[in-house]
Amino acid sequence: MAIVYLNGEYVPPEKALVSVEDRGFLFGDGIYEVVRYYDGRPFQLDGHLRRLEHSAEGARLPLAPAVANLPAIIERLMAENNLPDTCFYLQCTRGAARPRTHAFPAQPQPLLLVMPQALVTLPPNAHADGIKVITVPDLRWGRCDIKSTMLLPNVMAKTQAREQGAFEAILVRDGVVTEGSSTNTFAVLDGTLRTHPSGPHILGGITRQVVLGLASDLGLKVHESAFTVNELYGAQEAFLTSTTSEVLPITLVDGRAIGDGKPGPVALRLYEAFQRKVESKG
Amino acid sequence: MAIVYLNGEYVPPEKALVSVEDRGFLFGDGIYEVVRYYDGRPFQLDGHLRRLEHSAEGARLPLAPAVANLPAIIERLMAENNLPDTCFYLQCTRGAARPRTHAFPAQPQPLLLVMPQALVTLPPNAHADGIKVITVPDLRWGRCDIKSTMLLPNVMAKTQAREQGAFEAILVRDGVVTEGSSTNTFAVLDGTLRTHPSGPHILGGITRQVVLGLASDLGLKVHESAFTVNELYGAQEAFLTSTTSEVLPITLVDGRAIGDGKPGPVALRLYEAFQRKVESKG
Repeated sequence: MAIVYLNGEYVPPEKALVSVEDRGFLFGDGIYEVVRYYDGRPFQLDGHLRRLEHSAEGARLPLAPAVANLPAIIERLMAENNLPDTCFYLQCTRGAARPRTHAFPAQPQPLLLVMPQALVTLPPNAHADGIKVITVPDLRWGRCDIKSTMLLPNVMAKTQAREQGAFEAILVRDGVVTEGSSTNTFAVLDGTLRTHPSGPHILGGITRQVVLGLASDLGLKVHESAFTVNELYGAQEAFLTSTTSEVLPITLVDGRAIGDGKPGPVALRLYEAFQRKVESKG
Repeated sequence: MAIVYLNGEYVPPEKALVSVEDRGFLFGDGIYEVVRYYDGRPFQLDGHLRRLEHSAEGARLPLAPAVANLPAIIERLMAENNLPDTCFYLQCTRGAARPRTHAFPAQPQPLLLVMPQALVTLPPNAHADGIKVITVPDLRWGRCDIKSTMLLPNVMAKTQAREQGAFEAILVRDGVVTEGSSTNTFAVLDGTLRTHPSGPHILGGITRQVVLGLASDLGLKVHESAFTVNELYGAQEAFLTSTTSEVLPITLVDGRAIGDGKPGPVALRLYEAFQRKVESKG
């Protein structure tokens, strides 16, 4: 990894260290974002910063003042590391506090970390052939709209997927598809594009929001309403979205082919529209 | 804070640093325990170590080999810091991994941290007068039996309690009392001592288990079965248990007096029996 920003300093990774008393380490008391840069330009940075504020409000976590300088911090990291096409990971915690005790510290020392994050490695021909997913129970907490660092259930779900040769694990709460372990999930049912509505059971994805807008622009029938696993199995097509995966067709769910087992026309049109949006302005 | 053990070294707190790439920091991918020492002797250390193994299995988290030496590590920390009566906090994570990606790293570098943790500060006369609690929705994930560092909901609940002048927040899932944000909850209903049964919705507390054993020894009627918030409001008495709070009577829940508003006889007998157990052998 390259140069990293940590609490006002630009340091090599071996010097990017935090106290064991940081509440992000001890309590999962932190929030984060991953922002994509295309050809040196941020994509939907404002949306990510608004969501960071939403997470901070939800967790009642004070943000470091340096958050106001995030665009400049990322510009410098991009220049120092010569990485125009990458993602940047940023994390905010309530900082170190002593002694260890659950309740918020009286005087928090907000931490800000920003570091480049390698683009996700997609399976070969992922966009042309589609990808395989599995479904697993959604074990996460009741405030998934807060993008917190409490990711162990996501970590375990993603690992299960990889162990079964799948790209992603789709999370299912009470029979209903919520989202993927690090993506949002869409399905086309009876000609209507559907995805779980915003709320405490999903993270309101930035790419999800962009794709909903593009779908409207294209005149597609769109409905933000949840669907069951069985509906997903019988869907005409399905795809996932995320900052790092963009729009990725799903062709196999728990070993069952979706539609005719090939990427569907809606996913394809949205992926093309997404690419045009990226190229036009970022 | 005093000398700390981190990955084989005994260091002052300002040198107890972890990489920002540690998965405990980035993903809440860690587990922990808090062990009480009385007069230089561990209390229920075996129980804590068994639970650590249970958490590690649940999270599929490999433990650092040094975990086998925990008693000796703690002995040395106790000696160096001259702290015979305190708690020791220990945390295990999957360690640092690059690049940041959800799935388990192929070659994890398990981390072990051990540090003294100050005893909890109880309200004045807490055992004689009892303590005040509030109830809040239980927002935690579906594997609370894993003692993971994903504690943001606990942190938020405990903070709400403190803001309302209460010692603890009792968590309520679908109307049922599960446990406190860092304690277990007991109530006496129709002469029977009850507490939520073990399972994925509570952390199987070590002190909870000790108290259940003591209650049986005393010939009390005991039933591990859940009770509702309304049952708690109408309970004859209630108390909480934890490694740091031992057995602590609850006299006020959401502003309503429990029983006659004073610590009840069952809590008192169990607290005395607990003290005897501590004095007899630790």
